[in-house]
Amino acid sequence: MPQSISVKTSSRVEMVDITASVQKEVSRLGVTEGFCFVYVPHTTAGVTINEGADPAVCHDIISRLNELVPANEAAYRHIEGNSDSHIKASMMGSSVTVIIEKAQLVLGTWQKIFFCEFDGPRSRRVNIKVW
Amino acid sequence: MPQSISVKTSSRVEMVDITASVQKEVSRLGVTEGFCFVYVPHTTAGVTINEGADPAVCHDIISRLNELVPANEAAYRHIEGNSDSHIKASMMGSSVTVIIEKAQLVLGTWQKIFFCEFDGPRSRRVNIKVW
Amino acid sequence: MPQSISVKTSSRVEMVDITASVQKEVSRLGVTEGFCFVYVPHTTAGVTINEGADPAVCHDIISRLNELVPANEAAYRHIEGNSDSHIKASMMGSSVTVIIEKAQLVLGTWQKIFFCEFDGPRSRRVNIKVW
Repeated sequence: MPQSISVKTSSRVEMVDITASVQKEVSRLGVTEGFCFVYVPHTTAGVTINEGADPAVCHDIISRLNELVPANEAAYRHIEGNSDSHIKASMMGSSVTVIIEKAQLVLGTWQKIFFCEFDGPRSRRVNIKVW
Repeated sequence: MPQSISVKTSSRVEMVDITASVQKEVSRLGVTEGFCFVYVPHTTAGVTINEGADPAVCHDIISRLNELVPANEAAYRHIEGNSDSHIKASMMGSSVTVIIEKAQLVLGTWQKIFFCEFDGPRSRRVNIKVW
Repeated sequence: MPQSISVKTSSRVEMVDITASVQKEVSRLGVTEGFCFVYVPHTTAGVTINEGADPAVCHDIISRLNELVPANEAAYRHIEGNSDSHIKASMMGSSVTVIIEKAQLVLGTWQKIFFCEFDGPRSRRVNIKVW
């Protein structure tokens, strides 16, 4: 099993800033230069990189995704009732990759890594692998 | 030319589970630990990771994408008539990366790799590279 | 700091073909076989791979994204007024990876790498790292 971090979510749809946890894992693994691969092994959650300074940005991303992909649609056939979660997961994607230099994630000034919960609240895992 | 697998699609918009073909390529290349990079060299197709247990999930993803990006829109200018295919391709993305451990793709319990056809039916190639 | 290329955009929403600049960087770094990682360190811009032959394709991608994620929505809370830029950035993604063989990016016949400006015009950086 790859290294992983755990994420506990508290809402059905929620973006959780996991940057510090990912950086901690990079530091622990002792990689000074390379790449960090962040992978979500779930089908109703995703991961994205976006602004972390103003929480309103995450609010607006979620609000628009909910508008584009409503929880209930007559056309949905998946009987578990979480089709929207699967669709949102594919729209955000299951992984991000970040450059590592001097043992630090090389993110833009405003960038943070967000775990995207689309069918919470749940206990989730995020796999981390560096090279 | 990189290693590749061929995918034959039978509908205009269709998600094809290519997990077994990708795993076969990983096994053939003899990589026991690392990463598998899956790349679609087409501009009207993409690739995503999502649930493979219930085919209704793929149905619902396709149905919603078709709703969000209709095949015919007055605003489209591309004369080939497949603007929606190009837009959907960028929304899903052209590649996915999966961790390899013990010579196996490390996917979540419900995860499968899906080739996303958005302008079929066609004969397609998917490039596979491991490291 | 990783290697980077600069991109000057001239509209609020715009797709800029950066394939030649990325290839130039790959050539300069002298990598003959491996991968090229293209990373956008901004939160209101993204990167995607799509068709470069007909400019109408980019027009149609932008037009549809603007339709799906309008610049002004009553539900937006982010006071900078560029919530749509952040949402579009996450929909396109912050990075793409391309295989390198014989010192060349291995792209499909019609594929080009596009920097996606969603809050321009601005001067932007795109990080490039190869392995």
